[in-house]
Amino acid sequence: MTRADTNRLVMKFGGTSMADLERIRRAARIVAAEAARGKGVAVVVSAMAGKTNELVAWTDGVGAAAPGLYGDGALSDDEYDVVVASGEQVTSGLLALTLRNMGLKARSWMGWQIPILTDDAHGRARIEDVQGDALGAAVDAGEIAIVPGFQGVTRDGRITTLGRGGSDTSAVAVAAALGAPCDIYTDVDGVYTTDPRIQSRARRLERVSYEEMLEMASLGAKVLQTRSVELAMHKRVPVRVLSSFIEPDENGNLPQHAGTLICDEDEIVEKRIVSGVTMSRDEARITLLGLSDRTDAPADVFTRLAEAEVNVDMIVQSQARTEGAVNLTFTTGRRDARRAADLMTAAKAEIGFEELRVDDDVAKVSVIGVGMRSHAGVAQTMFRALADKGIKFQAISTSEIKISVLIDSDYAELAVRALHAAYGLDAD
Amino acid sequence: MTRADTNRLVMKFGGTSMADLERIRRAARIVAAEAARGKGVAVVVSAMAGKTNELVAWTDGVGAAAPGLYGDGALSDDEYDVVVASGEQVTSGLLALTLRNMGLKARSWMGWQIPILTDDAHGRARIEDVQGDALGAAVDAGEIAIVPGFQGVTRDGRITTLGRGGSDTSAVAVAAALGAPCDIYTDVDGVYTTDPRIQSRARRLERVSYEEMLEMASLGAKVLQTRSVELAMHKRVPVRVLSSFIEPDENGNLPQHAGTLICDEDEIVEKRIVSGVTMSRDEARITLLGLSDRTDAPADVFTRLAEAEVNVDMIVQSQARTEGAVNLTFTTGRRDARRAADLMTAAKAEIGFEELRVDDDVAKVSVIGVGMRSHAGVAQTMFRALADKGIKFQAISTSEIKISVLIDSDYAELAVRALHAAYGLDAD
Repeated sequence: MTRADTNRLVMKFGGTSMADLERIRRAARIVAAEAARGKGVAVVVSAMAGKTNELVAWTDGVGAAAPGLYGDGALSDDEYDVVVASGEQVTSGLLALTLRNMGLKARSWMGWQIPILTDDAHGRARIEDVQGDALGAAVDAGEIAIVPGFQGVTRDGRITTLGRGGSDTSAVAVAAALGAPCDIYTDVDGVYTTDPRIQSRARRLERVSYEEMLEMASLGAKVLQTRSVELAMHKRVPVRVLSSFIEPDENGNLPQHAGTLICDEDEIVEKRIVSGVTMSRDEARITLLGLSDRTDAPADVFTRLAEAEVNVDMIVQSQARTEGAVNLTFTTGRRDARRAADLMTAAKAEIGFEELRVDDDVAKVSVIGVGMRSHAGVAQTMFRALADKGIKFQAISTSEIKISVLIDSDYAELAVRALHAAYGLDAD
Repeated sequence: MTRADTNRLVMKFGGTSMADLERIRRAARIVAAEAARGKGVAVVVSAMAGKTNELVAWTDGVGAAAPGLYGDGALSDDEYDVVVASGEQVTSGLLALTLRNMGLKARSWMGWQIPILTDDAHGRARIEDVQGDALGAAVDAGEIAIVPGFQGVTRDGRITTLGRGGSDTSAVAVAAALGAPCDIYTDVDGVYTTDPRIQSRARRLERVSYEEMLEMASLGAKVLQTRSVELAMHKRVPVRVLSSFIEPDENGNLPQHAGTLICDEDEIVEKRIVSGVTMSRDEARITLLGLSDRTDAPADVFTRLAEAEVNVDMIVQSQARTEGAVNLTFTTGRRDARRAADLMTAAKAEIGFEELRVDDDVAKVSVIGVGMRSHAGVAQTMFRALADKGIKFQAISTSEIKISVLIDSDYAELAVRALHAAYGLDAD
């Protein structure tokens, strides 16, 4: 699908774009400008900024378990979803009212009305099917459809939510169902070569491939939720990231606001070796010192972690000082580190190690680019740039299109700037 | 139906009983005590106190029309309902979570899940049908059902709300569908002979008939919404009004809390002539001075008011000083007074009157009792009691079971106390 295939458009506005009535009016003016161009428009909205946190705090206060803690058959926190899904219901209705007050036809479509069918993993449900026929007919008839993000419904009619950041995923799923491209309006004007708060010479990317965006989202770029990028890639939905801080002119036309198009690699003419540099402090390093060097010891460790659904990213094994022992280092998400450490400590005798250390003063810095597939020397450039600044790395992981290094947290911004320059990404 | 007919019970908690998590926990303990007695329990809840006002203010802020202003075919504010119905969704989920956290089985049932079918008069919808089979089966199986009050769904799946105070009506409608009695938990411990803030010697009524309660609700007693009493009377649902400020003992038993039972007149053994005295300042008096004395002039006035849906309560016509003219006085609800006056002024020439006066320094004081039907002298007692205190009345209206007088607002409390004593209602 290219953007010319359809006269439909899905637009998504996040929590800061829905934060109060004035922001909602601004979003409505942007929607109206697209509708005036003859587009059949569906708009996916988040809750007012801060509202979901308030609702979640209330569910905590009455003792709701964190999403997904219950197994099959046990009481699950479907009621958590009943509470937290309400925030998007409010903004959906308010945006529809605002558009009507501007003289446009608009109505809201709750997750259960469309329906957006999900599995029953309450609090982190996955969309299984968006039945877009009625929705599509409505937008084709010129009625703007407002869809609360983040929410769906199970096949037996219970409200579900998709987990944090789920509104991006809702938007892409609705776009896929309508065969439409998806414009994500947010508080930045696109995807940058790195975080402009770290490197002011970061450049906005005109286009970025799904694969690159997926790595960037996973590796710390917060502009889009990872799952939404996966879905866009899988369904081939063209996604644009755009700033919501724009204003139509007196004729109702939007200013030029190209943003960043996330699309197939084939559609990107100007090839780059590296498209972006990301940094994340959402990591923790766990080291098992003096682990038995029997060959199945690492397997024992990682099996236990996998069974507890702790995702492990980087792994390094090195010789220990003790004869017949190794040191095993791995990284996990920071939120999982305590649980992983407790798990290891509880099985210390069975696994057989001397000491456990947890360090979360670490950062993961990554370079990402589809050009790596066909270019040698990418890693070499990285290591030289880091060495020139005296930055040591503690672990490495690679994929076909990225290289990540784990470094001391204090050096994170320095490393980002060094790599951004080394790959020629600095703006003139 | 008597209370012994069923093992089901509907309980309703208002906004002050749902105001925060501690109040919700208290309500949950009361619910748990009823469930522990083996009752199949459905609980109808309001939004947190103040929340509906906040949501309504947001809809005002984006230019939503007041509920019901649109005619058929025009865009109606169905989206107003999408926004304001969310408040009860939140408290439903929170109460269900709280009960689960106490080890009980509970789930919420949204208006669209039951469903509670209404007409499509958004913002002031009327319940047409509550399909209670699945709900009844769930409560009979020991799962406490939590139902958001105030909300329903149209036959084509749009969210509706019932108008202010609609949660009482929801509770009675659910009780009727389940063939259950309905306990309304509120911030007072029953229905009183008059407002205890005006007369500290007011007494709680053990029982009051539907007819009396309906008059009391219409005439200023704020304990129950009028429409809920109409529905209870029509469906013969026994309703108890109870205080939510009670606490189960250490064995989980509720203290004695009889409250007031609203029931058939036949079930009231101890007959009283007058059951209560009410007072309302929600009135305005409009006088047309020097109205033409042609016989159709009053009809012209009241037809115009009826067409604008202004309800007129009391009417008095008297001779004017001008030859061939009369003065016509009528009362309306205070909210409608400005509109009624504008309507009259706009048609001044056609109607033919000299001057219009609006006075909202008036109060309506009423005595209510089914005993009036069979007792003479009730009005006489009233007029004598008022005369003894030097209180003049400006208008009178009567029904089979009530007498209302319009008086100067300054005398309202004095009149209430005088009448309360005159009919022997003062506690010893």
